[in-house]
Amino acid sequence: MKMDLDRLMQERGLDALWITGPANHNPALVYFTGVANITRADLIKRRGEPPILYHFPMEREEAARTGLTCRNLADFRLDEIRKEAGGDPVKADAIRVARILKESGVRGRVAVGGNVELSSAYALLTELPKHAREVEFTGEGNDPVVLRARSTKSSEEIDRIRSIGSVSAAVLGDTAGFLASHAVREDRLVDRSGLRLTIGSVKAFIRRSLAEHGAEASEGVIFAQGRDGAIPHSTGTDSEPVRPGRPIVFDLFPCEAGGGYFYDITRTWCLGYAPDDVLQLYQQVRTAYAETEKKIRGGIPACEIQPFVCGLFESMGHPTIRREPQTERGYVHTIGHGLGLNVHESPSLLGSDTNHDVLQPGAVFTIEPGLYYPDRSMGVRLENTVWIRPDGAVEALAEYPMDLVIPLRGTRKSAPKRKPSRASSKQTAVGKRGRKKAR
Amino acid sequence: MKMDLDRLMQERGLDALWITGPANHNPALVYFTGVANITRADLIKRRGEPPILYHFPMEREEAARTGLTCRNLADFRLDEIRKEAGGDPVKADAIRVARILKESGVRGRVAVGGNVELSSAYALLTELPKHAREVEFTGEGNDPVVLRARSTKSSEEIDRIRSIGSVSAAVLGDTAGFLASHAVREDRLVDRSGLRLTIGSVKAFIRRSLAEHGAEASEGVIFAQGRDGAIPHSTGTDSEPVRPGRPIVFDLFPCEAGGGYFYDITRTWCLGYAPDDVLQLYQQVRTAYAETEKKIRGGIPACEIQPFVCGLFESMGHPTIRREPQTERGYVHTIGHGLGLNVHESPSLLGSDTNHDVLQPGAVFTIEPGLYYPDRSMGVRLENTVWIRPDGAVEALAEYPMDLVIPLRGTRKSAPKRKPSRASSKQTAVGKRGRKKAR
Repeated sequence: MKMDLDRLMQERGLDALWITGPANHNPALVYFTGVANITRADLIKRRGEPPILYHFPMEREEAARTGLTCRNLADFRLDEIRKEAGGDPVKADAIRVARILKESGVRGRVAVGGNVELSSAYALLTELPKHAREVEFTGEGNDPVVLRARSTKSSEEIDRIRSIGSVSAAVLGDTAGFLASHAVREDRLVDRSGLRLTIGSVKAFIRRSLAEHGAEASEGVIFAQGRDGAIPHSTGTDSEPVRPGRPIVFDLFPCEAGGGYFYDITRTWCLGYAPDDVLQLYQQVRTAYAETEKKIRGGIPACEIQPFVCGLFESMGHPTIRREPQTERGYVHTIGHGLGLNVHESPSLLGSDTNHDVLQPGAVFTIEPGLYYPDRSMGVRLENTVWIRPDGAVEALAEYPMDLVIPLRGTRKSAPKRKPSRASSKQTAVGKRGRKKAR
Repeated sequence: MKMDLDRLMQERGLDALWITGPANHNPALVYFTGVANITRADLIKRRGEPPILYHFPMEREEAARTGLTCRNLADFRLDEIRKEAGGDPVKADAIRVARILKESGVRGRVAVGGNVELSSAYALLTELPKHAREVEFTGEGNDPVVLRARSTKSSEEIDRIRSIGSVSAAVLGDTAGFLASHAVREDRLVDRSGLRLTIGSVKAFIRRSLAEHGAEASEGVIFAQGRDGAIPHSTGTDSEPVRPGRPIVFDLFPCEAGGGYFYDITRTWCLGYAPDDVLQLYQQVRTAYAETEKKIRGGIPACEIQPFVCGLFESMGHPTIRREPQTERGYVHTIGHGLGLNVHESPSLLGSDTNHDVLQPGAVFTIEPGLYYPDRSMGVRLENTVWIRPDGAVEALAEYPMDLVIPLRGTRKSAPKRKPSRASSKQTAVGKRGRKKAR
């Protein structure tokens, strides 16, 4: 949480933070400013002091709305700085940043941060020491203090993640309803006019639905059918027709419009009916989800979860990356990841013994077991975003049934005879049971 | 254009480029890969050679879709690299990148690029030289070769910008229609149920309309009324009711979903009627737009445009930043900016003599004169995205009328007596005339 920042800076010997870039899609800065229409700003936080936001004159109103202490760069006579730099834009930028640091009283070790274009940033960081001689700049690697502070969330942050979680659940519901309004003709989904439904048009529907709810899929949407769903990060093939009875991995990871808090949820759906082999895989993943959720409690070392899940899947007879690091079949990824202003952030759930993260109260992360068989055109993943409550219990931050089968108009008539109705009703039952458990 | 890259690298003494980060919202990488659901990849381009994309195993299908030569990091035994680094993630990353560079045969000067979190990137760049001793890493400042190559567009890129341009025009049209469907009660816009319309709900409408067209407002939307519109980068106040007769600056700068090509267009609207002082300001900005467009032709130094526009506005009696660098009244910004995979990119239209950019055939940029009087709650800006055609002529890449007044249901009844119908019809006429000119 933000209140941890000064302590973390002390522990790591940092005198100040300098965070730069735009105030949107830039987690380290947005953590302080909120999402704002600011093209570029510099935030200085000295240890033990509140942060100061340096902004360009045209963006003074947006800067003021952040509620932070603001300083207008108009007071820095940028035109004179440009002259002083002899027209060298990198040098001018370095002089400007050096003045900001000096004005804020910064000396000593300064950690850099922010989402930026590396070409300019590295040139600036190469020039800067010549102009800010009392400062030593440092990158903090994969665990900067701001990310570390963000690894536990305040109740206000939890509320915002819950809110984008309920948007995600609503979009899942809208999409299920949209799919269910289709019928099947020649083993393809068709709408009421008989037009074939494609993966691309489902994704367009999903994006519209997100926008209606004030969210955006800034990092994409996975709606991956058959073999695509068996490759964890494949987003699906837009031109492909949607078909009944094929497992579809629907992984939705939207954020608040402009790059605020994320949510991450995955369901695997079969339209109309589920073939037996998909059903079996689904039930195993579902079991793994439930067992994993049961194992997690506040204070557990995060690296313990992955080996536990590998053990579960191995006992079911699946290859895992623990036993076969190169495998592309079976269980091929990590059980989850921290989430917040980044879709992937701390805590880490990597199973390696170099991962010292602990799942503390306030931690927000995903639980997402999956099984993948590209050679059998079959992938199943189930995912919720959860948090550790102050009492140490795990709670999903949004609720949506885990059901496998989405019934279609006229499924009975057109689906092949693979006991569709049995699979369907069974899944609905499983779904209802699981829904209660996930609370 | 891409074909300029090898020549630019030669001119600047670069042996290779290393571009890193995700393949979305990352212009330097997306320029090669297109928008893709790739969390992190490394692209190596040696001078004179085609680029190679190094990707993580889970993203092999998405990587393959880019059409680039791909190499799977699974072949690099990442688990062994982690061990070799003794669990230090920055060191592990440095070893990995050093191996990639070695495998691609890279030696000499390597320019870095890509949109990344600076904290990790700077730590990596501090560690990397220890592992890649035959390479010297360099940041290129504000004019990296990839940005320079992108400063002229291929016909395929022009087509894509045209396409997001027609989306933008469609969204402007939808929004105008939405506003026009409202009536006025007690000096506020109300819908058919009598509910007051707010700036926030107009923005929600705009976002939905963008999503329907496969676009997103990843950098926000400006819909700024009255005083907000007089602060160029103010996005508007969501809670504020929309009112008739107030100038509204509507600046739309959407991109293809996932962070592809941008478009940028601004119209200033008055709902129902335009007060005389707004109308006068509008006509002056409109004149400045037309004169600026007339002045531009292929081959003109880009720095000549801004002083020309300052001269125009000064002759009309307005303060400009040329005469008063600190002014927040009058003409307070640059006449435009290059546009492509970034909403702001090369060519620069800064008026300073250090700007050596030339408006060459293939250049895409905005023309956006504006006048701002925060003390009079009045701002007007008109903007189109244009390109220099191969024959040297300027052409707007989308067409939308510049009309000031949007008629409302029942305007005549409820608007104050400031000759609304005259202003309205006059503006429509001006709009039509201007529309032809802008071709």
